[in-house]
Parts: sequence; C-alpha cells; structure tokens
Amino acid sequence: MIEVDLSNVWTCMSLPELLECEQEVFSAHAALREEREDGRLMDWLHLPDAALRRQLRRVSEVAGLIRDDSDILLVCGCGGAYHGVEAAVQAMGVTSGLEIEFIGQSLDARQWQALDRKLEGKHYSLYILCDRGSVTVDLTVRALRWRMERKYGDEAKSRTYVATLVGSYLHTMAQEEGYELFPMPKEPFGCESVLTASALVPMAAAGMDPMAVMQGAAQSDKDLDLRAFENPAWLYAAARYLMYKKGRDTELLCLTDHSLCGLGDWLRHRRGMDTPELGVQSLLLPGQQELADSLALRSGRIFETFLRFDPSTQKIPVEMDWKDYDGLGFLAGKNISFVQEHMTAAMAEIHNDAGVPILNVSAGQRNDEAFGAMLHFLEFTSLLTAALLGQELFTSPGAVTQMQALRDMGAPADR
Amino acid sequence: MIEVDLSNVWTCMSLPELLECEQEVFSAHAALREEREDGRLMDWLHLPDAALRRQLRRVSEVAGLIRDDSDILLVCGCGGAYHGVEAAVQAMGVTSGLEIEFIGQSLDARQWQALDRKLEGKHYSLYILCDRGSVTVDLTVRALRWRMERKYGDEAKSRTYVATLVGSYLHTMAQEEGYELFPMPKEPFGCESVLTASALVPMAAAGMDPMAVMQGAAQSDKDLDLRAFENPAWLYAAARYLMYKKGRDTELLCLTDHSLCGLGDWLRHRRGMDTPELGVQSLLLPGQQELADSLALRSGRIFETFLRFDPSTQKIPVEMDWKDYDGLGFLAGKNISFVQEHMTAAMAEIHNDAGVPILNVSAGQRNDEAFGAMLHFLEFTSLLTAALLGQELFTSPGAVTQMQALRDMGAPADR
Repeated sequence: MIEVDLSNVWTCMSLPELLECEQEVFSAHAALREEREDGRLMDWLHLPDAALRRQLRRVSEVAGLIRDDSDILLVCGCGGAYHGVEAAVQAMGVTSGLEIEFIGQSLDARQWQALDRKLEGKHYSLYILCDRGSVTVDLTVRALRWRMERKYGDEAKSRTYVATLVGSYLHTMAQEEGYELFPMPKEPFGCESVLTASALVPMAAAGMDPMAVMQGAAQSDKDLDLRAFENPAWLYAAARYLMYKKGRDTELLCLTDHSLCGLGDWLRHRRGMDTPELGVQSLLLPGQQELADSLALRSGRIFETFLRFDPSTQKIPVEMDWKDYDGLGFLAGKNISFVQEHMTAAMAEIHNDAGVPILNVSAGQRNDEAFGAMLHFLEFTSLLTAALLGQELFTSPGAVTQMQALRDMGAPADR
Repeated sequence: MIEVDLSNVWTCMSLPELLECEQEVFSAHAALREEREDGRLMDWLHLPDAALRRQLRRVSEVAGLIRDDSDILLVCGCGGAYHGVEAAVQAMGVTSGLEIEFIGQSLDARQWQALDRKLEGKHYSLYILCDRGSVTVDLTVRALRWRMERKYGDEAKSRTYVATLVGSYLHTMAQEEGYELFPMPKEPFGCESVLTASALVPMAAAGMDPMAVMQGAAQSDKDLDLRAFENPAWLYAAARYLMYKKGRDTELLCLTDHSLCGLGDWLRHRRGMDTPELGVQSLLLPGQQELADSLALRSGRIFETFLRFDPSTQKIPVEMDWKDYDGLGFLAGKNISFVQEHMTAAMAEIHNDAGVPILNVSAGQRNDEAFGAMLHFLEFTSLLTAALLGQELFTSPGAVTQMQALRDMGAPADR
C-alpha cells in the first residue's frame, strides 16, 4: 500500500551500499520482532478480532454520543498519541460538524482566556488523552473539570472521557469520578501510538471510520513484515540510516499539502524521541520553497523525505486574467492540484540535480484506510531506524525535568 | 532594552574564548555598517523623521479604513516580512475586532475551499505583501481578485492593497488597477524586514501602534551600535558563532508562550536563509518539554535560545481539587504564569546541569515598543552571526526552483 521510491538517492549512495546493510536491517528487524513476541512492542495490533471489534464498536458509540451532545470536543493531552490524533484530524478534515480543539500544551494566560471565550454559550465534552499526565495537562484538566462541574453539575461526568495508562493518576481519577475509561496499551510505544482505541475516539468523533483506519494499519503491518528489500520499510529505514552514516544528519520533511503539517509536527516529535541524532525539520511546499532551496543547496548535510497522498480530485481551476500581470496565463483553466504536483516534481528534480537525496513515501488516494497505513508505516520505520542506529528504545531520557521542577516547589516526588 | 544573559553557557565555552572573538565580531559589525552606509542594509531605519511620520500616518489611516469596511483582512504573501507580520499579530493578539487570515502559502484544494466558505457572507479586504510574487501567491491573488471583482465590482479597487518591490509585476498591477501601493525598500534585507511601512499596515489593522513599534526598533538600533561586548547583539551573535565552532550546530528556540510560536517560525525561516549551517528547531515549552529533554540530553550538538517577554500580568489561579489526584494541590491558588516561569527556570537549570548551553534573550514587558525592539534585535543579530560565519549575505541561492518549474511548463523566463 505504501510505496517508497528511492530513485532520487543515487547521487549520494549506491545500490551495493544499500544491499550491504542487509544483515544490519535484518538484525534490527529481528530485534523488533522479538520485542513484539514478548509483548513489549505493538502488541495492540494483534488483539483477537472479537476484542478489537468490541473496542471499535464502543469507539463509534462514544463518538456518536459526543457528536450528539456537544458543539466542541476538547482533546487535552500530550505525547505521541495526542499529536498523532491532531495530525489525523487535520489531514482528514472534520466532516461531522463537530469542532475539535486541542489543548493542554500551554500555561499561557492569554491562551486560557481565549479558550474561555470560545466555550462561552457552547456545549462541549472533554477527552483527556495522555499516558500519565504532565504539569501542563494536569493544570488544564483541573481548570476544565471545575468549569464543567459548574456548568453541567452531575452531567459533567458523562461528558468527560479519559484515555490513559492503567496506574496513572488519571486512571484513578476516572475510576473514582466515574468517567469512561479507554486504557492505553502498557508498552512504551503503545502510549505513543495513534493506532489504538484510546486515540481513535476523537478521530471517530471528527468523522473518520475507526475500523477502516485499523484495517489500513493491520494490512500495513502484514506488508512490512517481509524480511527483504522488497519491504518498503526496509528501503526507507535503511536509506535514512545510510544518510546518517554519510554525514547527512538533517532530514527535511517536505509536505506539499497544508493539511499534512500536523503529520510533519507529529513525526518531528516522534523522531525527536526515537532518533534525536537525526535532526528533523518540516516544511510546507511550495509555500516554504525558498527556505527549502536555501537549506538544500547550501548544505551537504541534508536529505529530504517527501510524504504524499495522491492529489485531491476536487477541481479548482486557475483563474483567467486577460492582462496576465504575473505571466502565468498559460496555467489558466488548469487545476491547482495539477500545478502543485508539477511544481513539487520539478523542485525534487532540481534539488536532486544539486546533489540532495530525496526519499519519496506515498500512500495513494487519501482515505481512512490509507491514512492508517501511513501512520503505521511511519511508526514502524521510526522504530526500525532507531534500532539500526543502536538507539536504546526502551529507556526514556526525557520526562525528568518536570518532576525535578515540581520537587523544587515541594511536591510529592512519588509520581 | 533587550537583555542577553549568558550565565548558562560557561560549561561549554569560556570568557577568554568569547573575548578572543572581539576582532572578528568587530570586523563583522564593521562590514554591516559599511553596507548600511552604502545604503544596502537597513537603510529604511534612517528615514528623515518627517518622511517616516508621513508614512506612519498613512499606515494608521489605511488600517482604520480596513477596520471600518471589513470583517476579515486577508494577508497574502510570502517571505520574511509576511512571516514576521504573522508572528507579530500572533504575539500581540488582535485587539481591533478584525479577523486576520494569512494566505498564499498553499495550492491545496481543501484549504482553498475552506477559505471560500469562510468568506461567504463576510466583508473583507486583501493585503498583498510580497517582494516579487511566487507561484503560490500569484495564483491565490488571481483567485481573490476575481472573487472580489464579482462581489464588489469597482469597489474591489479600494479594498486591495499591495506592498511590494518597485519593478515587480505586483507593482505594475497595482499601478494599472489603481490599488494603493506600499513600496518595499529595495535592499535585499528590506524586503525581509518586518520594520517597514509595508509590513506595518496589517499590524496596525490588528490594533498595534506602528509608531511605538518603530520607536522600539529605532531605540534598539541605537543600543546595538555599540562596538564592545556590552552590546547585547555582540554577546548573542558571538555566542552563537562560538557554539557553531564548537560543533553545536543545532539551535533549539525555546518559547514558553504559545503566542510566540509564530515568532519561532519566522526566526526559523529567517535563519534558514541567513545561516543555514546552523539548524534551527522551535519548541513550545512546557508543552514539548519531553521532546526538548530528549533532544538536549541525548545530543552534544545542541544549544538553546530562550526568547522571552515578562509573563502576563493577568491572574488565572490554579484550581483547587480536594481529592488532589494529580498531587499538585500545593499549587492551588497560585497564578499559572508563576508556575510557567518556575518550570521554565527549572528546566533551564536541569538542561544546563546536563551540559546544554542556554542563551537567554528577554525583552521586558510585552508591548508594541518592546516587540519592535525584539524584532530589530533578532533581524540584526541574524545578520551579524551570518557575517561572522562568512556567509555571503547578498546572494540568494534559493528562488531558482519555481522559475525552473515554470520554464518546464513553458512560461516566459524573464521574471
């Protein structure tokens, strides 16, 4: 389903070099498989069908409830699943009439007041999506629980949902307060994944079909299990690894479509955690093309990943202008999607001529299934590259700062 | 006005090392001064008072006209000035009741349709802000001119404004169609600057005082002319230069405030053009703190710049929760701005203990004047670091791709 095209990398690496990595990729893949067999990795993709179907049915029901009783769904959280949901909603659009607002990232008084004004006179529900909380999320949750209790009284209970790790304070809170719970998978990358019931609720509320997303992911999971370079995950992970070994340690994520910017941010976040040695920047094209040109042509340390779906089939023709001030009259009547495609291709060619290697990842027509496959592909290849780079996947060097900060303020240190 | 605090860099460089750069910084600064005396750099900051005052009066008048006859101001463009205006509006907020929409970065059919829906039934004006156009801007302008002519007939003329370089096609178009013109300064960094009449119109329409912004910038320009390490621009540019020389080639811009994210994007764009050797990522704290921790603790190639204004004086207390699920009860009643400040300081300390150098740039209370000073400081130090790195400032390696792409489609090649 996902296609990886490496035709624009050969100025900078050779086929034999790629093939020489076979043993390393094989070992990295085998290591990930072992983790999976021990239930420490992507275990949630292998739920028995009946259990998965039961989960997804509840996902759809809850999404329906939220759409029925709310104008706005507040999604409050942090981490990979949260950012992934934001990316999915932005990429697929909200088709259900609900407004979805992502919060919990800011302690900025102006932001909080803007949210207050937005909620005035509206009905809303709260979906908390977070493995174990963070100070920013916690204080936002405090504020909203209080606000909702004042507005809805006892009904606030049925408007609050919690997706979290078993054992977190959020889990305890949900049980004691009677909020509906969506437990996150226990494994470290389960909390980071977009492909679990926990993350699917807000996506379903936005109008996506959770079953289709999971089918796309499951199909991708089968496709990417192949242990040979016919596997697109092997191609992509090995190419990223080789780029790094050759001193190209900055990846530009090139997105041709405004609605994929969230996907870029999510991936930037994800890769900052998995493979921090490889710097990642995401760029919107053609809007930020001048910047992309400047970075690409001036630096020998860059490679590019183009993330694509087939262009929109909606037709918006370029307008006529009989004075043709801009000299683009020859485009009049052509579809803007066509112009976008053409410019992206031309840009790729020019960067490639200038010696910048480009990895193309495309997922075909944009629909829920293809999006599920894309998410799975990116999650899996992120792990595979990390394993190739020898990254310790199951330690988290971060998440110390907030605890330290709290201790300084006299908080209990036992969370 | 701007303060640079280097107290968190000494794990990684020494005072004698900094002072040894004196001759280099002096020469770089002198080179910039020479460019200025030749009128090739920042010349627009030295308009005679009467001319500047006349320009700013017109800026305010036009902003008033737009506020009177429009619900929405569409700002369509690309480049430094455009992104800077977006950053300013986001940081200072819109206080005039007008809605401001930034467009011209996307050829995505979904985005265009969303804009169409937004404009339905609303009154709007168009402000084109672009040195010489880009395919994306050009096609957006085509679509909007047509839309406005259909809606407003002849009145469309008085609702369209163009800020551009003399000699660009946009300039010709404005003259022939009778749109009001705001010519951009000719020098390469004039088109990139936020501190010209061209860029100030939408900022004034949002409610900022253009005179205060320019006063802040002019004061900063005087302050930063000092040729000694008492000059905060010297400290900051020299520290960035030393970081680079010591192999720390990635700068994390840390923003503690959601409304400064646009400033981070603008600066990322700006630095991608000026100093592409120095990778830049911008991060929102504490929201993206886990990512910042991961990047900072795992990589010896990073340094951080904190961009700050004094925290908001608006009081929003942390809510009580008698069950204290999150263990943050000791914060109840405290102002969220206080918590934000405390966490930022603690995070800086921990990163610094882990060997990550941190440059602190702060601009005092957030107001129009301080924001003008901040913009000027960042523009000036970007140039100064670039000069230190030996960057050729007056060649633009980018902007080739789009022309090439057009030629492939059979367009005239003479723009």
